[in-house]
Amino acid sequence: MEIALLGGTGDIGEGLALRWARDTDHTVVVGSRDPDKAARRADDYGTLLSERGVDHDVDGLGNEAATENADVVVLSVPPEYAVSTVETVSDGLADTVLVSPAASMDRDAAGFHATPPEDGSVAQAVAAAAPEGVPVVGAFQNLAAGALSDLDAEIETDTVVTGDDPDATALVRSLAEEIHGLRALDGGPLAVTALVESVTPLLINLAMNNESMHDLGVRFQ
Amino acid sequence: MEIALLGGTGDIGEGLALRWARDTDHTVVVGSRDPDKAARRADDYGTLLSERGVDHDVDGLGNEAATENADVVVLSVPPEYAVSTVETVSDGLADTVLVSPAASMDRDAAGFHATPPEDGSVAQAVAAAAPEGVPVVGAFQNLAAGALSDLDAEIETDTVVTGDDPDATALVRSLAEEIHGLRALDGGPLAVTALVESVTPLLINLAMNNESMHDLGVRFQ
Repeated sequence: MEIALLGGTGDIGEGLALRWARDTDHTVVVGSRDPDKAARRADDYGTLLSERGVDHDVDGLGNEAATENADVVVLSVPPEYAVSTVETVSDGLADTVLVSPAASMDRDAAGFHATPPEDGSVAQAVAAAAPEGVPVVGAFQNLAAGALSDLDAEIETDTVVTGDDPDATALVRSLAEEIHGLRALDGGPLAVTALVESVTPLLINLAMNNESMHDLGVRFQ
Repeated sequence: MEIALLGGTGDIGEGLALRWARDTDHTVVVGSRDPDKAARRADDYGTLLSERGVDHDVDGLGNEAATENADVVVLSVPPEYAVSTVETVSDGLADTVLVSPAASMDRDAAGFHATPPEDGSVAQAVAAAAPEGVPVVGAFQNLAAGALSDLDAEIETDTVVTGDDPDATALVRSLAEEIHGLRALDGGPLAVTALVESVTPLLINLAMNNESMHDLGVRFQ
């Protein structure tokens, strides 16, 4: 399986790239608008991994090239770039599962609020922009990015997976569960993804308001 | 401290009444629109408690009478009755902290969706309806009602507390934490309560879509 992480140079993309590289045999490709930046970050990830005795290269390419051979493309870009990134890479998306981990939010004096796009959620906006027949799956919105990127941190956290294509959602759940300590739950169809995306600003508010809490994830029990 | 649970005959009200009665020395009053029903349920709760060797009576009264001497009033009514219940009892709310645990949602073929009222959240709608100067606190939206009502069940779950009055939110957090296994987190001002209320339909969707999951709560970690 080949997994491309577009925007894989930052935050959640970094953590997923490192964890998939460490915990699985899948080919992991970091994508960026800037191919040189992608190559540099991929090198950094390779160094981090080999320091831990993990022999697993990570490739770094421009977003279009990263998408070309990927079976799964994760749109780990800021929410405002999710739709434009899909448009950029859409020629390479045939037979690809597209994963949307972004959550749209803004901040005022009270804290962070969810600001879903008109389609209902970022995942639904991505689905509206994706080529006909490309399944879109919502996942990985509520992970603690810092812990995920820190390979010394043990995680014990959930991700809620939503989607309308049973094979695509099953694939993403299975890829998620290959990451040690990550449990993938079935959240239902893409149409209810707004609920998952709105947990992300809640996690940030909790981290801001509670001493000793930072970089939070969620566990349903 | 005297705690009145309006709508305390059903679901989350039952669990909070039983747990506060078992785990604290506070006076617990169950309120209902129907005083006879409140009295019967309070008797039931007393029986359940004494069967477990807990000597703690629970009173049952009409909502107005239950509010009269209460220091804290929990609006554990369905969301569509939250505002009308506040209006009914508003004469008795002076020097009272009003707690809003309801979440507004509806269901279609995809599952449950959050349907916050125009004020932004049920808690904010309650605040708009409450008499001037009565602090409103959001709490207890995301508890597993079945586990809470089952005194044999050990809970290990979080509640997010939101509000604009620091003393009122501190009081509610402290009352919440007196329930064994319940951790109260500061979610910020009332204006971000929609994020907490939208976790409730997410919990129901997860319970519907995942075998072996039912009656879920949430833990932030």
